[in-house]
Amino acid sequence: MIRLDINKEDLSKEELQALEDAFKRCARRIILATTLAGSGHPGGSLSSLSMLLVIYGIAKVDPKNPRAENRDRIVISHGHISPGVYSVLCEYGFFPEEPFLMEFRRAGSAFAGHVEQAVPGVEWNTGNLGQGLSAACGMAKAIKLKGLNNKVFCLMGDGEQQKGQVIEARRWAVKFGLDNLIVLIDYNKLQIGGDISKVMPQKIKEEILATAWNVIEIDGHNYSEIFKALKKVLNKEVESPENPTAILAHTTMGKGISFMENDPKWHGMALPEDLAKKALEELGFDPKELDILKEKRKNWIISFPHQPHDPLPVKIEIPEPTIYSSETKTDCRSAYGNALAKLAEKNNLPGKPPKILGLTCDLESSVKMGGFKKISPSAFFESGIQEHHTASVSGALSKEGFLVFFSTFGVFAIDEVYNQMRLNSLNKTALKVVSTHLGADVGEDGPTHQCIDYLGILFNLPDFEIYIPADPNQTDHIIRFIAKRPGNIFVGMGRSKVPIITKEDNTPYFDENYKFVPGKADWIRKGNKGVIITYGTMCHYALSAWEILKNKGIEVSLLNVASIKPFPEDDLLEASKFKNIVVVEDHYVETGLGNKIASFFALKEKFVKLKLLGLKGPLSSGSPKELFKLSGLNPENIAKTMEELINA
Amino acid sequence: MIRLDINKEDLSKEELQALEDAFKRCARRIILATTLAGSGHPGGSLSSLSMLLVIYGIAKVDPKNPRAENRDRIVISHGHISPGVYSVLCEYGFFPEEPFLMEFRRAGSAFAGHVEQAVPGVEWNTGNLGQGLSAACGMAKAIKLKGLNNKVFCLMGDGEQQKGQVIEARRWAVKFGLDNLIVLIDYNKLQIGGDISKVMPQKIKEEILATAWNVIEIDGHNYSEIFKALKKVLNKEVESPENPTAILAHTTMGKGISFMENDPKWHGMALPEDLAKKALEELGFDPKELDILKEKRKNWIISFPHQPHDPLPVKIEIPEPTIYSSETKTDCRSAYGNALAKLAEKNNLPGKPPKILGLTCDLESSVKMGGFKKISPSAFFESGIQEHHTASVSGALSKEGFLVFFSTFGVFAIDEVYNQMRLNSLNKTALKVVSTHLGADVGEDGPTHQCIDYLGILFNLPDFEIYIPADPNQTDHIIRFIAKRPGNIFVGMGRSKVPIITKEDNTPYFDENYKFVPGKADWIRKGNKGVIITYGTMCHYALSAWEILKNKGIEVSLLNVASIKPFPEDDLLEASKFKNIVVVEDHYVETGLGNKIASFFALKEKFVKLKLLGLKGPLSSGSPKELFKLSGLNPENIAKTMEELINA
Repeated sequence: MIRLDINKEDLSKEELQALEDAFKRCARRIILATTLAGSGHPGGSLSSLSMLLVIYGIAKVDPKNPRAENRDRIVISHGHISPGVYSVLCEYGFFPEEPFLMEFRRAGSAFAGHVEQAVPGVEWNTGNLGQGLSAACGMAKAIKLKGLNNKVFCLMGDGEQQKGQVIEARRWAVKFGLDNLIVLIDYNKLQIGGDISKVMPQKIKEEILATAWNVIEIDGHNYSEIFKALKKVLNKEVESPENPTAILAHTTMGKGISFMENDPKWHGMALPEDLAKKALEELGFDPKELDILKEKRKNWIISFPHQPHDPLPVKIEIPEPTIYSSETKTDCRSAYGNALAKLAEKNNLPGKPPKILGLTCDLESSVKMGGFKKISPSAFFESGIQEHHTASVSGALSKEGFLVFFSTFGVFAIDEVYNQMRLNSLNKTALKVVSTHLGADVGEDGPTHQCIDYLGILFNLPDFEIYIPADPNQTDHIIRFIAKRPGNIFVGMGRSKVPIITKEDNTPYFDENYKFVPGKADWIRKGNKGVIITYGTMCHYALSAWEILKNKGIEVSLLNVASIKPFPEDDLLEASKFKNIVVVEDHYVETGLGNKIASFFALKEKFVKLKLLGLKGPLSSGSPKELFKLSGLNPENIAKTMEELINA
Repeated sequence: MIRLDINKEDLSKEELQALEDAFKRCARRIILATTLAGSGHPGGSLSSLSMLLVIYGIAKVDPKNPRAENRDRIVISHGHISPGVYSVLCEYGFFPEEPFLMEFRRAGSAFAGHVEQAVPGVEWNTGNLGQGLSAACGMAKAIKLKGLNNKVFCLMGDGEQQKGQVIEARRWAVKFGLDNLIVLIDYNKLQIGGDISKVMPQKIKEEILATAWNVIEIDGHNYSEIFKALKKVLNKEVESPENPTAILAHTTMGKGISFMENDPKWHGMALPEDLAKKALEELGFDPKELDILKEKRKNWIISFPHQPHDPLPVKIEIPEPTIYSSETKTDCRSAYGNALAKLAEKNNLPGKPPKILGLTCDLESSVKMGGFKKISPSAFFESGIQEHHTASVSGALSKEGFLVFFSTFGVFAIDEVYNQMRLNSLNKTALKVVSTHLGADVGEDGPTHQCIDYLGILFNLPDFEIYIPADPNQTDHIIRFIAKRPGNIFVGMGRSKVPIITKEDNTPYFDENYKFVPGKADWIRKGNKGVIITYGTMCHYALSAWEILKNKGIEVSLLNVASIKPFPEDDLLEASKFKNIVVVEDHYVETGLGNKIASFFALKEKFVKLKLLGLKGPLSSGSPKELFKLSGLNPENIAKTMEELINA
C-alpha cells in the first residue's frame, strides 16, 4: 500500500514508479469490471484514476478500520466512476478484488453502478450529480465541530459543475470556514454529450474564484503535480488559507488506453470483449484473463452484500415536557421552537461540541429557530436561500453523530428538495426535517407556498417516518420523542395558532401523562355511530364538527392520526368497525391520508362507507379559514358529511 | 400613463417629475394593500418600485391587450413584491386600483400574495425563488424563434441570487444567445434574515461576470440611471452585445418611507395601521383613507377572479403511425425517438420557425432525441446537467406556442425537478415530459437512478396527465396523440427492449386500427376468473403470466392501463366484477397504481380480493430481469399470486 508523506518536498522516483504500477493494476480492474458487467463508466474512471491513487495515498484512512471517526473523508461526487473507486480501494486493501470483479453491478452486491456508502471506504451514495460537494461540506463541518483535524477530499466531475447546487455548496463552505475541504475536479472536458464547452459553456475557474475559493490548476495525470497541489493545501500555502481550495486538474478521459483517450463514447459504455482484451494487452496483462473471469462469473454467488454504515450515535438528554394549558393560543411552530431551545439547553453545553444542530434557509424566525440560535449560536446554520444544498448538507451532518434539525416551509423542505431527501434516504441518514407552513395553512401567501402534497411526496421514501402534531402539546411530545429516535423523520405543521386539543373535561388531551407512540393514533373522543379521522391543523376543526354532531345527539369517534407513518394499523382496523368513516385533511385529497386509509381498507378487505374531505388542488391566496371553508373543511360541512354518511 | 422613449438622451424634467409622482401613488397603494390585507411584502415592493416604473414606461406592453403576442415580457422573479407590481400595473392602466386594494390576498381573487400570471400584465407565477429567470429565458428564446424583436425584462431579488438554479439559467441564456434578455437585480442588501452578506456571503457581480454576462451597476432609485442603463442595453452599447445583461441596481428596502428604509422587518410584514397612516402622511396622502377603505373592504365581494392566460395554440400535423411487427425487438425509447423525428419532419419546416422543440440534459442519445436533433438542430436544446433550469425553461417555452418535449431519465425529470413541475402546473403550461429509465428498468445503474416513485410523485399535480405505454407500438400511438393534446402530460417508459404486445393471433395489439383514448384501458386478454392489471414494462411479464395460467386452464383477463391519469374508471369498475385482481407494477408498491386502484375500489364500495405486486423499495444494482425476479415480478410469481387468490 502506497503511503505518501506530505512533509517531503516531492515524490521520490520509487513512489512515482509505484503509482504508475498501481495505475496499471487499477486500469486493469476498471476494464475487467466494466466489460464483465457489460456496462459502467470506464472513461471517467481512468481520467480520475491518478488523482484517486494520490488522494488515498495521502489521506488518513485505514482499510482495517474504514469507519474510524478520526479518518479523513473521501467523497466521490461523480458516482459513476465507481469502477475507478472500487479498483483503488482494492489497491489500498479495503477489500479483495475478486468480489468486486465478479459482482460489479449485480443484484444483491454492494458493488453498485454508482458508488454507495455500503462499500468500505466509500462515504456517500452519489450518481445524481451535484450533491456530493454538499455532503462533503457536512462532513468537513462535522469534523470541525468535533474539534478534529481531519480533512475532506471531494472528487468531482467537470460536467457536474453545471448543477446549480454546486455553487450553493461552495458559498456555504466559505461562510462556514471549511478550510479542511479540498475539491479535486476531474477536468477531462468531456461529458456524455461530448465536449463540455459545447454541451454547456462554462468558465469553471472563474466561477469558483467568484465564490472566493482558492484554485490551483494542475495536470491531473502528473503525480508530482497532484502531490504538490495537495501538499500546498494541507500546509495552508494557498492564497486564502481560511477558505476551501479547488484543484482544477486537467485530465484525459480514457487515460492510459490509447484508443479510449478523449473519446466521449467511453464515458458510459463498457468496452466490448475484443477491445477490452486489446486494452489489457496495452496495460501489460494477459488478455485471456477476461475469458477465465467471464466463466467464473457465471457461477459466482454474491458474497459481498451492502456493509453496515450507520449514523454515529448521539446521546441526547430529554427535557421535561412543556404543557400548554387549555386556554393557550399559540401555534405548533412556537411549541417546536420552545422544545428545540430546551433540547439545546440540556445538550449543547458551553465549552463542549454541540450535540444538536439546526439549519434553515432564510426563515429562522418563521420556523421559530431563534431560541435555539440564541442558546447555541455555533450550532445554528443559516444557509441562505439554498435549499438543495441545505437538504444534502443536513443529511450528511446527521450521519456524523449529531441530532440535526432542518426547518423551512413545506414547499421548500419537501417539494423543492425531494430528490435530495431521496438521496439522504439512500444514504441512511438520521435527519429530522421539521417543516412549518403545511397545507393551505400558510397565511395568505398563495398557491406557490401551499404545500398540499407533503404526504403524497413523502410516502415515496420508504424509511421516512411522518409525524403531524395536532396542537402545541402534541408538538412538544413529538419533538422530544424524535430527539432520541434514530433514522429520518419528518414532522410537519401549519402556520396558524390552533386551540389546545382537550379532553371532555376541558383539560389538555396531550398532557404530561400522554406518551407519543409511533404507529398509534389518538382516540380524542369515542362514539359508535362513525369515526372522523384527522390530523394536524384539522384536528380542532374536526373536534368542532364532533361537537355539532353531539349537540344533535349523534355520537361519533374522533381519531387523530399524528403518526402517519408508521401507519396506525390497529387503530384503523378498530375504526373500520364503526363502518361510517370521514377522513378530514388539509392536504390534496388524491394523495393524502384518506387515500392511504381507503387503500388500506381495500387490501385488508374491510368494507366500510368512507368519505374523504380534503383539498381538490392548489387554492388561491386567502386566510386558511376562508380556504378551508371553500374546500368543505369547515366544521359544519364535516358534521354534515358524517351525518349524511350515517343516514345513507 | 408614462411612455419613455429610449431614443432620447436622458429623461426630461417633466418625465422625472411624472415618475416621482407615480412613485408616491404606487407607494400609497403598496401601503394600503398590505395593511388592509394584514400581510404581504411592502419592503421589497418599495425597493423595486423605481425600476418597475421605468421598465413599464419603456417596455412594449399594451394594457388594453396585455397578452399581445408581440409584447415585451416583464417577468417578476421575486414574486413576493406583488404589491409593488400590482400597484404599477394599476398606474399603467392594466386594471383599476379598487379591486386590487379590496382583494389583495383574499380567497378567490387573482391578486394573490405572490404574483400570478392570471393577472393581466403578469407573465409568470413566482414566489418560490430562483425560477423566474428560467421562465424569462424561455420567453426570450421563444421570441427569437418566432423572429420577433421583443425584449424580456426580468426583475429579481438579491437574496434569490443564492439559488443554484439562477446560475444554470444564466449559462443557458449565454449558450442560446439571449441578447434580448435584460435582468434587473433589486440589490437592497437585505433578505428576511437580515443583511445578505451575513445570511450568505456572495459576490453577485463577480458571479454574473463569470458567466460572461454584461453587468451595469446603477443607483436603482435614480430614474435617469435606470433609464440610461436600459437604453444602453436596448441600443446594444454593452461590452458583449451578443450576451444578456444584468443591471445591478443598488436600492433601499422600504424606499420612500423614512421609518421603513433599510429595516429588514418590513420585508415580509405589513405596517400596522398607525404606522401605515404615518406612511401615507409622509407620502402626502390623507391617512384617514385607510379607515374608509377598511370599512369598504368588510363588505366587498370578490370581483376580480383569475383571468385566463392560456398557452398560445400550436397547429401540429400528425404523421402516420409506425407499426412495429410482432417480431421487432426494440425499446419504447427508440419508438419515442422515431415518432418525435417524424413529427419534426412534418412540422418543423425549413425556412420557418419550428413548431416542435426538444430539450434534454446531457442525455440526448439515451433518450433518443438524436433523430429529432438531426432534422431540427435549431429546435433542439442541449441544456447541460441543469435539470432545474431546464424544467422551468421548458415549461415557459410550452406556453409560447410551441409543442415542447422535455426528456431525461425519470429521477431527473420527476424526482429532481418536482417543484419546478409544480410551478409549471400553476403556470398552466402545456409541457410534454417524456421520460425514460423508469422504475427498476434502468440498466444496472443502481438505486440513485431508479425512479420507482414516478406515479406517487406525479399524482400530486392535479393537471398532469400520465401515460405509460406498454410497448413500442403503444408508444408511437401515445406520442402522436399527445402532440395534439393540450396541457401538461407525462409519458414514461423503461430502458430495456420489450417484446411487442400481441393479440392472440400474434399480430400487434396496438396496430394501425388501435386508437389511444385517455381514460380507457386495454383489455389485452379476456378471461373471467380474475384480472391482472398492469402497465409499462410489466405488460409483457404479465402476458407471460397469463400464458402460464392459461396453460393450467385458468382463464383470466389482462388489463393494460396506459392511461394512468385520466384514470380509467369504467374499465376498473368492469374489472371489479371479476373479484380476483392482481396489480403488477415496476413501481414502489405503496404509492403506485395498485394503491390508487385499491383506494378507488374502497371509495366506490367495490369489494374485491386484491393483491398488489410491486417494488418494496429501492433495489440494488442489477439487471432489470434479476431485480424484477427478486421483487416477485417474474411471470411465475405473478401467475402463482393470481392462482392463490382464485383458490383462497
